[in-house]
Amino acid sequence: MGAKAVTKGDTKTALLEAGMDIMRDKGYTNTGIQEVLSSVGVPKGSFYHYFESKENFAVEVIHHYSQSYTAKLIYFLRDESLQPLDRLKAYIDAGRDNFLAQNCCKGCLIGNLSQEMADQSEELRQVLSQVMGKWRDLFATCIDEGQATGQISKRYSPVELAEAFLSGWEGAIMRAKTTKNIEPLDIFNQVMFDGLLKA
Amino acid sequence: MGAKAVTKGDTKTALLEAGMDIMRDKGYTNTGIQEVLSSVGVPKGSFYHYFESKENFAVEVIHHYSQSYTAKLIYFLRDESLQPLDRLKAYIDAGRDNFLAQNCCKGCLIGNLSQEMADQSEELRQVLSQVMGKWRDLFATCIDEGQATGQISKRYSPVELAEAFLSGWEGAIMRAKTTKNIEPLDIFNQVMFDGLLKA
Repeated sequence: MGAKAVTKGDTKTALLEAGMDIMRDKGYTNTGIQEVLSSVGVPKGSFYHYFESKENFAVEVIHHYSQSYTAKLIYFLRDESLQPLDRLKAYIDAGRDNFLAQNCCKGCLIGNLSQEMADQSEELRQVLSQVMGKWRDLFATCIDEGQATGQISKRYSPVELAEAFLSGWEGAIMRAKTTKNIEPLDIFNQVMFDGLLKA
Repeated sequence: MGAKAVTKGDTKTALLEAGMDIMRDKGYTNTGIQEVLSSVGVPKGSFYHYFESKENFAVEVIHHYSQSYTAKLIYFLRDESLQPLDRLKAYIDAGRDNFLAQNCCKGCLIGNLSQEMADQSEELRQVLSQVMGKWRDLFATCIDEGQATGQISKRYSPVELAEAFLSGWEGAIMRAKTTKNIEPLDIFNQVMFDGLLKA
């Protein structure tokens, strides 16, 4: 009994993990169901045992990614050993180093799928919008705390700063992915923190 | 002799125009060669008479789009009847109204293809990076003029402000396309102009 029994749940999770990696790299349309199944070693034809459709698979992939990414965001944004502005900075610095370590490739699954699919699938658009809305709210809460302690500028509301932070970060990732150079992220970092957030 | 003779050049331009519209809406992978040919009424099978490959077609579509879009940018950014900061504002306001008029759909062809294709095609990545680099330089020249007249803040260099402007604008379009709400663009507008550019 040395081998771990593989349950239906394990296989589904493995398919979601594989879909997450492949879709983040290649996008929705370029991701083949067969490639996902092969990478997990699941027999051809069993995909519909786990998912209704490719679209439904993508919805579950987004939820799966969102769960782990949101946990990571919360780890940074509720770290009470740091002041609110320093939490945002720690999050961005870690994301920047991670992106550089993967040679400015892939980027953000949610940003990639938003750009590709927002006009192609109303179901995906709604899920993507909900996930980014949740992230924006987490940023806004941290910014609100920073405004209360006087560390973050009160020139704009927490939601306005959080929206500018999120869209600026996503745009900078897209630019860096295209130039294959970290500079757009470093400029975002400097301008956003020194120019906008700092009180 | 009432009908205008259709030359090879006319047909090629018509294919590029159709490719531009369809790719902007659906992305590279989702764009079918057959759909492009049908929309122009060009017989099946004649695509390779005009283009070496789908990738080569996309490169020419990007150049075609870039030509007209760069002309539009120059129209705004060299409008000497306005001060430099007001030229940037006029450009963003027109883009915002245009995006709203198309129900926050489609967005920027170059941004869409960058997000989708930067890691999938080195040839496309290079062309996309060149086009955005040219736009960034046009913004930087206008910002430089505005810094010289004292209208634009000198806190950051023209290239830094131009990069933050371009990536922030692209990120805000992506967000607005996903939320189907103009708010992210309006927040970008307010924060970028009042919070960063204005001296």
